[in-house]
Amino acid sequence: MKREKDVFIFMITELTKKQIAEIKSLYTKHGRKKSPFCVVEGVRACEEIFNRCRNLIEYVVISGDYHGRSNVPTDVKSFIVKNSLFNALAGTVSSQGILAIVKVPEENIQVVKDDFIVALDRIGDPGNFGTICRTVKSANLNHLWYTKGSVDPYNDKVIRSAMAAQFLLNLREFENLEELRKEAVRQGFNNICLSKPASGSSCFTTGGIYDKSIMVIGSEGQGVSDLSGAIDIKIPMPGNFESLNAAQAATILIFEYVRRKEANLKL
Amino acid sequence: MKREKDVFIFMITELTKKQIAEIKSLYTKHGRKKSPFCVVEGVRACEEIFNRCRNLIEYVVISGDYHGRSNVPTDVKSFIVKNSLFNALAGTVSSQGILAIVKVPEENIQVVKDDFIVALDRIGDPGNFGTICRTVKSANLNHLWYTKGSVDPYNDKVIRSAMAAQFLLNLREFENLEELRKEAVRQGFNNICLSKPASGSSCFTTGGIYDKSIMVIGSEGQGVSDLSGAIDIKIPMPGNFESLNAAQAATILIFEYVRRKEANLKL
Repeated sequence: MKREKDVFIFMITELTKKQIAEIKSLYTKHGRKKSPFCVVEGVRACEEIFNRCRNLIEYVVISGDYHGRSNVPTDVKSFIVKNSLFNALAGTVSSQGILAIVKVPEENIQVVKDDFIVALDRIGDPGNFGTICRTVKSANLNHLWYTKGSVDPYNDKVIRSAMAAQFLLNLREFENLEELRKEAVRQGFNNICLSKPASGSSCFTTGGIYDKSIMVIGSEGQGVSDLSGAIDIKIPMPGNFESLNAAQAATILIFEYVRRKEANLKL
Repeated sequence: MKREKDVFIFMITELTKKQIAEIKSLYTKHGRKKSPFCVVEGVRACEEIFNRCRNLIEYVVISGDYHGRSNVPTDVKSFIVKNSLFNALAGTVSSQGILAIVKVPEENIQVVKDDFIVALDRIGDPGNFGTICRTVKSANLNHLWYTKGSVDPYNDKVIRSAMAAQFLLNLREFENLEELRKEAVRQGFNNICLSKPASGSSCFTTGGIYDKSIMVIGSEGQGVSDLSGAIDIKIPMPGNFESLNAAQAATILIFEYVRRKEANLKL
């Protein structure tokens, strides 16, 4: 792409058959396992990647009728393809004419400086996992830990729900909650709180649950795994209806932290 | 269906062609408009209907390999169909072998006795609308108001996300926020709060926002409509990321009410 008098001229280059097959494979679990890449779809998610982790972009694919071309950074390799090919590649009708092939960040064993860590235990629903990534980032937290049995965080659906927030977080996978706790304790996070639908102390009135603590949210179907010595935390639900969706429960627990932090209350 | 020695014997009766066509049409906007019914899919949502509003059920359709037959009340008309027909009827692979054809409740102009009312302004996403229904019910609130331009609350996807909570709420549709406010004021709800992503007073520290108030949540794309004299309310978002998903924002605002209520704080 070169810039001429403020008008962007794209080089019309063809995707190779190999690239087409690669993109398609990234929509499958098996394909992602064999590849260092993942696929990021949609205008807002791609813009997050352009703005915050451009170095991870391998290339961008744009459909012929996509109108936001000028927002694609000039140093990013772009392919414009026919609408029919784009639609055959994209995972949804709401892919909005742009997708990026992006390197999956390597797991990064960092010292956690945040006040608390959100951990997900076997969250299998892509929408829930993605929404929680986005909510964690909104709360200015930088880490998200999860156990095996959770959905792949670089699944295209998870990326779409997260608006690509997972690229801005330090994600770490653990074999199970026992292994996760070992690492937590090693880093000085001694309280492990488990979010329970019906038992435990109220998240709104229990002190210390955000002070060098881990808050574990389990899957909707199975709940959180057992873990001896953990603190059960419950969200008061006066309506006595079905337990909340996992992403809603996580949001309440995360923003109770924000509330305490903003008001300079004891975490 | 008759009961013999604690074993349920289902009458194998065939769905008529007309019924098959009716069920299929309920998955479309056009079809729902012409029909007094809607379709409720899945075990948990159907159980809510069995337990809480059985009088609304027209009939139930069960796939041949569905194992929870004994949970279907004996006084409910049931059809067992071949798996292939069931799968052709159901909207998702996760329909779990059971769906119910249910009367859409009539709009009920009730005096609102709750402390506050959640209102949705042009929420088009079925998952968001449904999740918010479920969260409103969890908070022991009984009303949900919404403006034209929102998704049909009896769309099958909305029902699935809500776990059928909309059947337990008083839903009311208004032409726009001005009309909604007129009715609110008539009922003594004089404060209209608009959830804004970047401006306004903090939901965590502003008094009076749950005391005979309306809290309006807008669509993710467009935000809340303008309304003069309304109070802008913001959720503090220290992470400076994209604004929260509409359902997450609603959840935070609704459970801040629960928190204040549980602690006997000023609403």
